[in-house]
Parts: sequence; C-alpha cells; structure tokens
Amino acid sequence: DFFAALDEVHPAFGVNDEELQQCVQNQIIKFSDNIEKIISDGQLFIDQVRKSSRTPLVSVLLHGPPGSGKTALAATMAMSSEFPFIKLISPENMVGFSETAKMSMINKVFNDSYKSPLSVIVVDNIERLLNWVELGPRFSNSILQTLLVLLKKIPPKGRRLLILATTNFKQSDLKDLSMSDCFNSEIYVPNIKELLSVNHILEELKLFNDNEKDRVISDLKEVKLNIGIKKLLMIIEMSRQDVDNKIEKFVDTIISVNTTEITKN
Amino acid sequence: DFFAALDEVHPAFGVNDEELQQCVQNQIIKFSDNIEKIISDGQLFIDQVRKSSRTPLVSVLLHGPPGSGKTALAATMAMSSEFPFIKLISPENMVGFSETAKMSMINKVFNDSYKSPLSVIVVDNIERLLNWVELGPRFSNSILQTLLVLLKKIPPKGRRLLILATTNFKQSDLKDLSMSDCFNSEIYVPNIKELLSVNHILEELKLFNDNEKDRVISDLKEVKLNIGIKKLLMIIEMSRQDVDNKIEKFVDTIISVNTTEITKN
Amino acid sequence: DFFAALDEVHPAFGVNDEELQQCVQNQIIKFSDNIEKIISDGQLFIDQVRKSSRTPLVSVLLHGPPGSGKTALAATMAMSSEFPFIKLISPENMVGFSETAKMSMINKVFNDSYKSPLSVIVVDNIERLLNWVELGPRFSNSILQTLLVLLKKIPPKGRRLLILATTNFKQSDLKDLSMSDCFNSEIYVPNIKELLSVNHILEELKLFNDNEKDRVISDLKEVKLNIGIKKLLMIIEMSRQDVDNKIEKFVDTIISVNTTEITKN
Amino acid sequence: DFFAALDEVHPAFGVNDEELQQCVQNQIIKFSDNIEKIISDGQLFIDQVRKSSRTPLVSVLLHGPPGSGKTALAATMAMSSEFPFIKLISPENMVGFSETAKMSMINKVFNDSYKSPLSVIVVDNIERLLNWVELGPRFSNSILQTLLVLLKKIPPKGRRLLILATTNFKQSDLKDLSMSDCFNSEIYVPNIKELLSVNHILEELKLFNDNEKDRVISDLKEVKLNIGIKKLLMIIEMSRQDVDNKIEKFVDTIISVNTTEITKN
Amino acid sequence: DFFAALDEVHPAFGVNDEELQQCVQNQIIKFSDNIEKIISDGQLFIDQVRKSSRTPLVSVLLHGPPGSGKTALAATMAMSSEFPFIKLISPENMVGFSETAKMSMINKVFNDSYKSPLSVIVVDNIERLLNWVELGPRFSNSILQTLLVLLKKIPPKGRRLLILATTNFKQSDLKDLSMSDCFNSEIYVPNIKELLSVNHILEELKLFNDNEKDRVISDLKEVKLNIGIKKLLMIIEMSRQDVDNKIEKFVDTIISVNTTEITKN
Amino acid sequence: DFFAALDEVHPAFGVNDEELQQCVQNQIIKFSDNIEKIISDGQLFIDQVRKSSRTPLVSVLLHGPPGSGKTALAATMAMSSEFPFIKLISPENMVGFSETAKMSMINKVFNDSYKSPLSVIVVDNIERLLNWVELGPRFSNSILQTLLVLLKKIPPKGRRLLILATTNFKQSDLKDLSMSDCFNSEIYVPNIKELLSVNHILEELKLFNDNEKDRVISDLKEVKLNIGIKKLLMIIEMSRQDVDNKIEKFVDTIISVNTTEITKN
Ligand SMILES: Nc1ncnc2c1ncn2[C@@H]1O[C@H](COP(=O)(O)OP(=O)(O)OP(=O)(O)O)[C@@H](O)[C@H]1O
Ligand SMILES: Nc1ncnc2c1ncn2[C@@H]1O[C@H](COP(=O)(O)OP(=O)(O)OP(=O)(O)O)[C@@H](O)[C@H]1O
Ligand SMILES: Nc1ncnc2c1ncn2[C@@H]1O[C@H](COP(=O)(O)OP(=O)(O)OP(=O)(O)O)[C@@H](O)[C@H]1O
Ligand SMILES: Nc1ncnc2c1ncn2[C@@H]1O[C@H](COP(=O)(O)OP(=O)(O)OP(=O)(O)O)[C@@H](O)[C@H]1O
Ligand SMILES: Nc1ncnc2c1ncn2[C@@H]1O[C@H](COP(=O)(O)OP(=O)(O)OP(=O)(O)O)[C@@H](O)[C@H]1O
Ligand SMILES: Nc1ncnc2c1ncn2[C@@H]1O[C@H](COP(=O)(O)OP(=O)(O)OP(=O)(O)O)[C@@H](O)[C@H]1O
Ligand SMILES: [Mg+2]
Ligand SMILES: [Mg+2]
Ligand SMILES: [Mg+2]
Ligand SMILES: [Mg+2]
Ligand SMILES: [Mg+2]
Ligand SMILES: [Mg+2]
Repeated sequence: DFFAALDEVHPAFGVNDEELQQCVQNQIIKFSDNIEKIISDGQLFIDQVRKSSRTPLVSVLLHGPPGSGKTALAATMAMSSEFPFIKLISPENMVGFSETAKMSMINKVFNDSYKSPLSVIVVDNIERLLNWVELGPRFSNSILQTLLVLLKKIPPKGRRLLILATTNFKQSDLKDLSMSDCFNSEIYVPNIKELLSVNHILEELKLFNDNEKDRVISDLKEVKLNIGIKKLLMIIEMSRQDVDNKIEKFVDTIISVNTTEITKN
Repeated sequence: DFFAALDEVHPAFGVNDEELQQCVQNQIIKFSDNIEKIISDGQLFIDQVRKSSRTPLVSVLLHGPPGSGKTALAATMAMSSEFPFIKLISPENMVGFSETAKMSMINKVFNDSYKSPLSVIVVDNIERLLNWVELGPRFSNSILQTLLVLLKKIPPKGRRLLILATTNFKQSDLKDLSMSDCFNSEIYVPNIKELLSVNHILEELKLFNDNEKDRVISDLKEVKLNIGIKKLLMIIEMSRQDVDNKIEKFVDTIISVNTTEITKN
Repeated sequence: DFFAALDEVHPAFGVNDEELQQCVQNQIIKFSDNIEKIISDGQLFIDQVRKSSRTPLVSVLLHGPPGSGKTALAATMAMSSEFPFIKLISPENMVGFSETAKMSMINKVFNDSYKSPLSVIVVDNIERLLNWVELGPRFSNSILQTLLVLLKKIPPKGRRLLILATTNFKQSDLKDLSMSDCFNSEIYVPNIKELLSVNHILEELKLFNDNEKDRVISDLKEVKLNIGIKKLLMIIEMSRQDVDNKIEKFVDTIISVNTTEITKN
Repeated sequence: DFFAALDEVHPAFGVNDEELQQCVQNQIIKFSDNIEKIISDGQLFIDQVRKSSRTPLVSVLLHGPPGSGKTALAATMAMSSEFPFIKLISPENMVGFSETAKMSMINKVFNDSYKSPLSVIVVDNIERLLNWVELGPRFSNSILQTLLVLLKKIPPKGRRLLILATTNFKQSDLKDLSMSDCFNSEIYVPNIKELLSVNHILEELKLFNDNEKDRVISDLKEVKLNIGIKKLLMIIEMSRQDVDNKIEKFVDTIISVNTTEITKN
Repeated sequence: DFFAALDEVHPAFGVNDEELQQCVQNQIIKFSDNIEKIISDGQLFIDQVRKSSRTPLVSVLLHGPPGSGKTALAATMAMSSEFPFIKLISPENMVGFSETAKMSMINKVFNDSYKSPLSVIVVDNIERLLNWVELGPRFSNSILQTLLVLLKKIPPKGRRLLILATTNFKQSDLKDLSMSDCFNSEIYVPNIKELLSVNHILEELKLFNDNEKDRVISDLKEVKLNIGIKKLLMIIEMSRQDVDNKIEKFVDTIISVNTTEITKN
Repeated sequence: DFFAALDEVHPAFGVNDEELQQCVQNQIIKFSDNIEKIISDGQLFIDQVRKSSRTPLVSVLLHGPPGSGKTALAATMAMSSEFPFIKLISPENMVGFSETAKMSMINKVFNDSYKSPLSVIVVDNIERLLNWVELGPRFSNSILQTLLVLLKKIPPKGRRLLILATTNFKQSDLKDLSMSDCFNSEIYVPNIKELLSVNHILEELKLFNDNEKDRVISDLKEVKLNIGIKKLLMIIEMSRQDVDNKIEKFVDTIISVNTTEITKN
C-alpha cells in the first residue's frame, strides 16, 4: 500500500539536510504572530498533499521584499514535512551554469520527485533562477518556460508533490512573466514594521542588557520601520563588535537604512 | 476500400490512452448547457472529417481563460472519435527541449498522422509550445512558423485529419501571431459565472451536505463569480481537508480568488 | 535550334504534376469575369516569355487576402504553360528547415531552372517562406535577401524564366521589405464580394436545390459580403453534413464569418 | 617600367567580359545629354587613376532610383578602361552565402586587385551586398565595416585602383551607414523625366512606326514622367507582344506605372 | 582550533602582493579626514569578519567618480587584513576573455576562498567586469548573475569572507542592475573638492617650493574644484616636466579639467 | 641601467616604418600654426614618457572631422619618438576579422609593448576598430571593453607606454561609449577654415602659377571654408589632370564640397 511504497523509497532519495540548514543560518525567531501563521499555513499544505488523492500537486509561492526571511521559512517548512524526497533548487548551486545546464538540473529534480510517493521541492529565488535583471528587462525565457510547465505538471499516478517557491518578484512582475496562474496559493512574507518585533529579536539575541534595550526602543519610537530580518541581524552583529558604542551604532544604522530604503525605491 | 485501409493501419499507430486520460484528471462534469453544446459540436467535427471527402482537413481551436477546462474537453473529444490515430502534442512532453527538437517532434506527429486514413491531433497549450511570454513579448518564431504551415497543410490524398488545438491566447494575440486564419472553427470555453454551475459541481463532489451547501450558495449570492473549473476543484479539495471549517474556508477562498483576479487583470 | 534544345531538356527536368494538383484541391470555378481576366493575363505572360528574346525574365506577383485563391490560380497558370521545367517553391515542403536549408532549397530550384530553355517557378506564400510574423515584426532577412536577388537575376543566355509568386502581403509590407521593385507585374486576387459569385458557386457545387438556393440568396441580400473562396467552400461542405439544417447553417455561418472578419481587422 | 609591369600582369588576372556584358543586357542608349556626361565623367576618372601617381585610389559612387541604369553604366565604364584587372562584386554571385563568406569574397577581390598595377572594381548594389532591408532597418554590419575600410584603403606602392560602386541608397541612408565619407566622387543616375528621352528610345527600338510613335508621344504629353530605363524597356517588350493593341498597352502601362510609383513613395 | 587552521592554510593560498601593490601605484596620501575615516572603517569590517561567527560573510562596496582612489583604497584595506587568502578579481587580468571564461575565473576565486578560514576578495571595477557601456545600455547579464549570487552566498561552515568591491556605478545604476541589495555596507569615495587637500598633496609631492605653492593655491581660490586624485597626480607629473613653466601649466590644466568635467556631465 | 635595457630590446621589436609611412601618403604640410602646435605637443608627451618614472602610461586622443589629418599626424609623432617599439593598430590590417580575432590582435600588441622599456602604440580609427555605425547605433562591445581596459592598464614595473589614438567620434559619442575617462589628454585636429592655409598648400604643391593662384584665392574669398586636408589634396590632383580647365575645376569643386558638407550634416 501507499505507506509501504513510501518507506521503500526513503533510502533511495534522501534529503540533503545540511544544504537546507544552510538556508536557516540564524534559526527562525518567532518575532510576530504573522510568522506563526505562515508556519501553520505551511503545515496545512503539507497535510493536504499527504492526504488528498485528488490534488496530487500543490504549489505555493512565498513572496516578499529582499531579506524578509522567505528562504529560511520555505526551508523550515520543507524539513518539517519529513517527506522521503526533499530537494532544494537554488541559484547558488548553479553559478556559471549555461541556460541549458540549468534547465536540465531543474528538470532532473522534478523527474526524480515523480519517483517518490511524497515529495517537496523548494524552488529558491525564482528571479535569480531566471537570470532576471530589471534593466531591459532581461531574463532566460527558456528557464522561464521550463518552470511554467513544471510548476503545473501533474505528477504521474500515485505520486504527490508539494512545491515551495520563493521570490522577490512583485505581482506585476509575475503577471508580465505569465506566472500569475502557476501557483495554487501565495504567502506574503513582509518586512519588520513593528517596534515590538525588534524588541522581541533584541531580547532573543541578547545584544543589550534591559536598560540599554529600553533606550534603544525609545530612540526608535519615531522611526517608520521597514527592515528585513536579514539586515536587522547583520546590524545587530555589527553593533556587537563596536563594544563602546553599541547603542549609537545600532540606532544610527537602523535609522540610516530605513532612510536609504525609502529614497532608493 | 477506405474502411479496410482504416482497419489495417489501426495496430500500427495506436492511441496513448493513458496520456489523454491524464488530461482529464477529474472527469468532465456537465455543469452547464454550454458544456453539452461544446461536446456535441466536437462530435459534429468528428463526423465531418469521417464523412466529407472534400474537407480532408478540419482544424478547431478551443480558447478561453486559464483553467477553464480546455485541455480536458479537447482530450475527451479526441478519445470519443475512436480514430485509429490520436496523438497529443503537449509542452509537458517537451520540457527542456531546444526549439529544433520541439519542431521536429511536432513535425513528426503530423507526418505520422498523414499515414493513417483518419487522425486526430490535439495541440495543447499553443502559448506554451511557442515559449510565449507577454513581457517583450517573446516567443519562438520557428515553432510558430512550423505550426502556421502544418495547421493549414492538407493531408495527402485519401488521408483526413482533425486538429484540436487549445490556447489561452486572446483574439488579439492570435492576430498578432498571424494565427487568425489558421483554424476553420473556434470554440470558446468560458469560466464559470453562474452560481447554478457551482451548485451542480458541489452536488456532484459531495463536499457539503444539503444544508451546508444551501448556506454556501446563499453566502455567494452577492459575489460576481468568474472562476475556472480547475481552480474551483482545487478550492473544494482544500476545504475538504479543513474539517471543522469547511464552509468558511470554501466561501472565503472563492471570494478572495474572485477579487484578486479582478485586480490582477 | 531553340526548340530542339527545349525538347532535349524535357526528360531531364520534368514537372511534379501531383504537387501542383494538390494546390488546386477543388478545381477552379469561374465564378466571375475577374477570374477569367486573371487566367488570360497569365496566358499573356507565358506567351511573352516563350516569344520575346529581350525579356528572358518575367516575374509576376499574385497578391490578395487569405484564402482568395492565389495558390490555386498560380498553379493552374504554371501547369497551362507546358514548359519543360515547372517547379513549386512552397513552405509546406520546408517545415522545420533551418534558414540556411531553406535558402539552398530556393537557390537550387532557380539554378536548376537556368538549365532549361523555358521554365516556370511558383514561389508560394512569400510571407511564410520568410517566417514572417506581424508581431515585431520578425522575419528571416537572409531568406528575404535571397529572394530579392533571385527575383531580379536574369537567367543566362538562351534561358527564359517566368516567376509566379503569391502572397498575403499588402503593398505597405512589400515596400517595408524592399520588394516593391522586385516584380514586373502584379495581379490582385480579391475576396468574393458579389452575391452573383456565391450563386454561381452554389449552382456548380449542388449544395441546394433551386428553391433552397433562391432562399439562401435572398437571405444574404443585406449582407456586406467579403469572403475568400477557400472559406466559402469549407462552409458549403460543413452545411452539407447538416442534412436537416443546411440552409440555416449556411446562411448563419456566412453572416457570422463576415461579421468576425470586420471586427478582426 | 610601369607599362611593362602592366603588360606582364595582364594574362594573370584577366577580365570576365561575359559577366560584365550580362550587366548591359540591352546596350546603352544615349537618350539624353546627361547620359553622355556620365560616360565622359567616367572616362575622366579612368584617366586620373592611370596618370596621377598621387591618387592611387579613386572611388566613385553611382546612385539613383531602382532601374535607372546604374549597373549598366558602371559596367560599361569599367570595360572601357581596358585595365588588366576588372572585377565585378555582385550580390548575384553570392546568393545564399553567409556573411563571413561574403566578406572574404569581397576581401579577396580587393587583395587580388592590389597585385595589378591598374585595376577597376565594380561594387554593384551596395544595399543588397549589405543584406539591407528598410524594415528595422536590418543589415550586415560586418559586411558594412568591411566595405567602409576597403573603400578607403590605399593600395600598396605602385598599385592604383578605381572603384565604381552602385546603389539605390539615398544620401540620408549613406549618412546613417557612415558611408558619406567613403567616396571621392558621386554621380547621380536619374530616372527618365523627359518625353524627348522616351521618343529617342522608341525610335531606337522600333516598336512603333512614325505615325504610331507620334500618337504615343502626344498621348503622354500631360503625364508627369518618372520612370527608370529598365522598366521602360520591359514595357516596350510587353507592348510588342500585344500586336493589335500596341499603342494602348504602351500608353496605359506607362501611365499606370507613373501613378503607382507616386502613391507607393 | 580556528587559528591553527588559519596557519595551516596560509602557505596553500598565499597572496599576490605585487598585483595588489600595482593598484596603489603612488601610495595613499592622507590628504583629508575622510581618507582616514575610510581606512579605519575598512579596519572595522576586517575585525568583524575575523571575530563574529554569526556573520561569515561581509560585503562592502567602494563607489565614487572615476579616478577618486577606490581601487587603491580597497587594495590597501585588503593587504592590511593579513588574511591568508587575499585575491584580486580585476578586468585587467581578463582582457579578451569570453563571458564564460570570465564567469569561471570569478567563480574559481570564490570557490578557492571557501577553503580558507579567513579570506578577502577585491572585486575591482564592477562595471568593467560586466562589460558595461551606457549606450544601450549593454552588459553581460551572465556575469552580472554570477556576481549577484556570489556576493550573497554564505561560505560553508567555519569559513569567513570579506568582499571589497569597487565601482563607478551610481545608485540608480546599481538599482537597475538589481545590485542594491547585494552589499552589507557602502563607502563613498569622493573627488577632491577642498583646496586644503590640493595643498596637502602638493606639499607631499614637492612639485613647488613654498613660494610657488602659495601662488598656485591663491590662483586656484576661485575655482570650484572637483577632481580625482588620479588626474591630479597626472597633472602634477606633467607640470613637473615643464621646468620653466610649472606654475602656469599646473594652474591652467587644473582649471581646464574642472571646466570640461562640468560641460561633459 | 635603463638605457642599456633600451638598447638591448631594440632589435627584438623593431618598428614597421613602411606601414607608418603609408599613413603619411602625402607628407605633412605645415599649413598653419596649429599644425606646429600639435606636433610640438606630441613631442612633449614623448618626453614625458621617456623621463617621468611616475607616469609609466600616457594616453593621448587625436580627434576631429574625417580627413582632417589625424592618422598622418599620429604616425608622424610616433616615428619621431624613435622608441624601440612602435606599433600601429589599424582596421586596415583586420579586414574580415572576427571580433575575437580583432581582440586578440589588439591584446597582443599591448602585451608585446609591455616587454619594451619604451613603446608607442598608434590606435588608429577607433570607430572602425569598434565596427561602429551610427544607425542603431551598433558596435562591438567586446572590442570596446578590450580597449577600455587596455587604454587604462598601467604597464609592468620599468616599462613605459605612450598611446596615440585617433577617431572621428565626437565628445558625446565618447561619453556614450564610456571613453571620456580613458585618455590623459586630447588633441583636436580641425578642418581647414582659413584661405591662408589653402594658399600655403597650393604654393607647396605647385598646382598653379602665381597668377592663377591669386585668381583662385580671390574666387574663394566669399566661401565659408570647411574642408579636410585629405579632400583638398584629392581636389588638387583632380584639377591637375584637367589641364585646360584647372582653375575652374578647382574652384567649383571646392565650392560644391563645402556646400554639400553643410547640407549633409
Ligand atoms: N522569523 C524568521 N523568519 C525568517 N528568517 C528568520 C526569522 N528569524 C530569523 N531568521 C533568520 O533571518 C535570515 C533570513 O534570511 P533569508 O535568506 O531567509 O531571507 P530571504 O527573504 O530569503 O532573503 P533574499 O530576499 O535575499 O532571498 C536567516 O538567516 C534566518 O535564519
Ligand atoms: N465540464 C468540464 N470541462 C472541463 N474540465 C472539467 C469539467 N468538469 C471537470 N473538469 C476538470 O477540470 C479540470 C480542467 O482542467 P484543464 O487542464 O482541462 O483546464 P485548462 O483550461 O486546459 O487549463 P490551462 O489553461 O491551465 O491549460 C480537469 O481536471 C477536468 O477533469
Ligand atoms: N476561381 C477560383 N480561384 C481560385 N481557387 C478556386 C477557384 N474556384 C475554386 N477554387 C478553390 O478554392 C481554393 C483556393 O485556395 P487557395 O489555397 O488557392 O487560396 P489562397 O489564396 O492561396 O490561400 P492562402 O492565402 O491561405 O494561401 C482551392 O481549393 C481551389 O481549388
Ligand atoms: N542609357 C542607358 N543607361 C543605362 N542603361 C541603359 C541605357 N540604355 C539602355 N539601358 C539598358 O537599361 C537597363 C538598365 O538596367 P540596370 O540593371 O543597369 O539598372 P539599375 O539602375 O542598375 O537597376 P537596379 O536599381 O535594379 O540595380 C540595362 O538592360 C541596360 O542595357
Ligand atoms: N588618499 C588616496 N586615496 C586613493 N588613492 C590615492 C590616495 N593618495 C594617492 N593615491 C593614488 O591615487 C591613485 C588612485 O587611483 P585609483 O586607480 O585607485 O583610482 P580609482 O578610483 O580606482 O580609479 P578608476 O575609477 O579609474 O578605477 C593611485 O595611484 C594611488 O596610489
Ligand atoms: N598638416 C598635415 N596634417 C595632416 N595630414 C597632412 C598634412 N599635410 C598633408 N597631409 C596629408 O593629408 C592626408 C591626411 O589624411 P589622414 O588619413 O591622415 O586623415 P585622417 O584625419 O586620418 O582621415 P580619416 O578621418 O579618414 O581617418 C595624408 O595624406 C597626409 O600626408
Ligand atoms: Mg532567499
Ligand atoms: Mg490546458
Ligand atoms: Mg496560398
Ligand atoms: Mg543595378
Ligand atoms: Mg579603479
Ligand atoms: Mg585616419
């Protein structure tokens, strides 16, 4: 039966945990309710693929600004599924590949997944997989077409597949690239905009003692926050080095980053 | 004579039923009169090819929004013909192919069909066969030219061919691509816009008991429906998993999908 | 002398009658005076090439809307010449060819023709030979350049050549492609716009008895006709299948086609 | 000395007279003073190259509308030089060549010329050599660059070269292509605009008897003439075939051609 | 432990000091406070990479106008780190390379760095690495994509990397190229705008005696200075040759350069 | 020591004097003060490279309208240096080369120069090296990038290089091509605009006797002169052939050239 088949295949495919761990460099900090919601939604999709035989393919897109935590969240969901086949398709493993080489690498992962009864594929950073650059714009149409087909292709009888894709693309980019209809569901991963979240993170990472932290939070009260978790963690580590000047360094950098971001966009 | 020739060829070509079945994943539900009309029109074209020696080539285009059921309908028509040669030309079988490889695969199917007295070719998802993307727009002109010629090329003496093509292209796209004159007839496959159709489908798929269903239908009364059968089926399955919350989940998702679609376009 | 040379070469080149016949699928119906005029003009060009030693090259373009009968007329003229060398250059024989392959195929036909004292070359569907598509527009410049030279290249001493080309291109397209100066003469092949022509064709093809035909013609009186002979013949055959409903089917389809054409353009 | 060297080289290079003759299909008719002027100017350039050691390279461009007689005039000048090296670079000899093949063919002719003390190269139909098409516009930049250098490259010591190029390009095209500075001199070859010229040509070609000719000329008095010699000769031959109807045919075609030309441009 | 590993690797990788010295042709003159600030900031990043295990990757961009001293400063910082692996990725070492060859050279340097516990990579002149030219604009997207991935790719466990990149790109260019999010920090290297800096440099390079220098400075008082250190050094050397005319030559050239720069931009 | 090294290398590299002489076809006529100034400036750059060890690379651009004498002047400067390595990079030696072949030829000359203690490289006609054409515009970006790097690359220790480049590009073109910052100095080579210069040249070349010359000069008094030395020399030679008509021919051609130039631009 199904679960026997599942067991059989387990050793054959395996899961590259190290690679997935690398995506979650600094753990997941549950700094807001939204993070909890995203993680539980992920669990629901995993369950659906495991149980409903009418939907052998479920594809989910995690989208949001750069550094908001998309990859770490997708990798965490994928690992939590404990499916026998979990693979990461990442631009980092294809540096310098030709378009053709990228296409066959992507195609191979999907074809391999079709041999496992239950699979997760994390398709990380779609814009980079496509060699996308806004200027032009330019991108690899052949890789795009490969994805457009594979993201909708139903696995063969008796196989089920969950696709977790991540991207910085906005809705308008997705539409331009005919990707609007590719995903069954979309999850938005936002930047941090609440001082409460910053507070939570500072507590967890113990950069400041309580007094210091309070001063920091109070200094940032007037700031219109809009920062990715990734950049926030980098600023915390920079400030940590600056022993005599931690508070100022932290507050000033946060402020300057938020200001630049606004003029940049 | 003709029917002897027909019989002879039968074993040589065969029909890949599994592949065609895969296109009709969840059966055809006759949720509206229009669906019945489409299926009977299909039967008329099959008859014409079988009987009229003056029209050895009949080509029909099924067009409509994404997920409206085009592929399932075309595959169903093709299988119902019971012609000795029925082939599917689908992007899903050409992932990662070069343009040249795609061209010869397409060309081969047509050349093979010319050897059978009666053939059906399903040309699925023309925009994907062409590597079309709206941004640019970009597409493979060499594959387009191959199709432009093959869709109009009359089979050799004594051979007859029915072409059933599907596409998301709008009339304006077809014109831009010089495809307006390629087809002898066009069939429009619309989204679901009537609550009655939803009711029909819910009944058939037994997601709700009668009470529940009535509440759902009443909740959706004010909604301007515009949804493809494919997406509707996905939402039904998602809601089915959410045992305690089926109704809300179904109603909310339907509403949010219809809203997004509008802002998207 | 000349006619001896002509005889000698005859067996060497031959004429592929079957291929040319295939272009005239449904005979030539002389449904209007214009058709007679076109055919007699064709005869004049054939005579000129045969007799005037000062014009060893005469090139004629048959242009008009899709399906107006250009190919059938060109093939008919070519066959009527009874020259020892008659060849068809058609996109249908080059499906999937590379640009280079197309170029040498075209070049070969012309070079072969230079060995016969009297030749006709039918260059069918120039826009398709060029891989033309309006979107862009895109086309094969190398094939265009090949044609631009060959259409004006005078055969070697003692050889004479008649070129009959067909195209859907409009004058403006020809100008854009530097083809305005390529042809010595142009023949326009129009759509059917007179009810009298439809009447003539219906009589010839015996779709209706006299009563029925009169009703049909009367039903179409108000319609602004603009239809190609090719499409008209397809509609006749479709209606023929619909035994109980012939008249309505014919009239309705004619009307809907004429309406769509207008909105299309 | 110089003339000895000249003699020596004579047999080594030779001149393909047949090819050059082919360019002057129907002789040169001196139908106007301008034609005489062009021919005597050509003689001056030939003399300059032969005599002045300070100008080892003289390049002349013959430009004008299609069919005005450029090629025939250039070939005639070239042959009249009686230089030991006279070569024609013509698109007609490079049908289907790749850009690279064209470039080396062109380059070879120039390199060969550098070995003869006195040479003429006819570069016929620059726009076709460049694969030029107005749409885009598109052209072969690599062939253009080859010409841009070779047209200005001074032959090695003791060698002299006359370049006679022909083109339909207008001044603005030449400027766009950086060709404005390539030529030492330019000769404009106009269409026929005088009825006197037509009269001269008709007399020479004996299409009509004197009475007929007078009627023709009188019929054309109101027409704003603008026709190339090439087209005029074709019309004369066409009319010659139409024995009973010569005058009308000739007059009508002349008129219709002049009218079309205007709307075309 | 870590420092043992560090020592071990030292001989294996080495540092090409000569190449880096070549980048600092004329030493670093500390002609303003800003230069001191830049150098001490550089030291901070080196310390961070050496000490914080949470930030295994720190990437810094030095940007500013042409010739402002970016490369010399980056090379100086890199050498001051004394890390066991210090490599320069420079367009000067890739002249005439294909895009593919460039990509693998870049990729190789990064992969090599991942084997050293502590590394610095100087990525010099990004716009030139990308084959950037404003006209179009054109650039190598494949090299851009390679950089976009490598600049963000975290080294494997236990390895740490400092990236020092230099560029003339403005913020808007970086945004167009999707490079805005690639760097953790940015350092602006400005042109010289203060007469005090010029004074400092003239003193150090002993072009003038004190009297002369005072005259020069006074002559330049009204000039709106905006000049790169690189150009200033060239002008000093030019003037030095012009023994009798040093002061005028220096003052005039400085003035004319500043004027041209303004009209140029 | 340095001068010993210089002597040693002398035989190894050599200078192709013939090739450089070919660039100065008709000597340098010092027809104006500006010409003297240009030549003495050239001498200054040569001295600087020979003497100042702080500026191992000096690059100079000679720019101006077509035929103003740029190449002849650059070649003359180069030869006057008597450096052991003097090479010409000219499009005339690369006719029909692929972009790659051009790049390696250019690269080789620079690499060779790095082996000589003192070198001059003449980079002739940059726009032609780049396959530049205004239409588009089109050019070889890979060759441009090669030049952008090589023109700024400092030779290895103990080697010094003078680069003399020529071009028709205007400042705006140079900016578009990112070439504005490539050269240490720029020399403008203007057209002839003074009647005095024409007088000087006519005297030197003895086309007229004194009486004739005076008449010519007086005839040209009202003409707004703007002519390159190259074209002027060609007109002188043309007129010389026309024995009976020298004065008129000269004056008329000068006038017509100056008029055309104006309407051309
Ligand atoms: N709640 C959280 N969600 C996501 N990441 C978190 C969270 N808490 C901590 N992190 C850490 O923040 C970092 C998020 O970086 P990540 O690469 O996932 O962002 P991203 O959105 O994928 O960035 P990019 O747009 O560059 O791809 C990781 O190091 C992760 O361990
Ligand atoms: N009446 C119906 N018509 C079509 N499909 C139906 C119908 N009833 C149920 N279905 C099911 O709905 C799904 C329709 O999906 P299908 O792939 O045919 O849509 P599509 O229009 O081809 O989508 P796409 O635009 O993505 O190609 C199939 O799973 C099919 O079994
Ligand atoms: N008078 C006629 N002239 C031309 N074709 C006719 C005529 N009468 C009947 N026919 C039939 O009509 C059809 C015309 O089709 P044909 O392929 O020649 O049109 P076409 O203009 O070349 O179309 P396309 O634009 O698609 O190339 C042929 O089957 C031919 O036998
Ligand atoms: N005075 C004349 N000048 C030129 N050609 C003449 C003259 N008299 C007669 N002819 C004939 O006219 C024809 C001119 O054609 P030619 O090919 O030279 O024109 P063209 O301008 O080169 O055309 P295209 O623009 O197509 O290249 C030749 O057949 C030539 O023999
Ligand atoms: N304070 C300084 N900062 C930087 N360079 C200095 C300084 N003082 C002297 N220099 C010298 O100035 C020159 C700066 O040139 P450098 O190549 O670094 O400029 P750059 O900004 O990289 O130029 P480009 O934009 O062309 O790449 C070097 O020769 C360097 O030795
Ligand atoms: N004073 C002068 N300066 C330059 N050239 C002169 C001078 N006097 C005479 N000449 C002659 O004028 C000609 C100048 O041509 P040259 O090829 O150098 O011009 P150019 O500006 O390089 O032209 P192009 O823009 O076509 O490259 C040469 O033949 C040269 O011998
Ligand atoms: Mg990510
Ligand atoms: Mg489909
Ligand atoms: Mg046709
Ligand atoms: Mg010609
Ligand atoms: Mg630099
Ligand atoms: Mg020059």
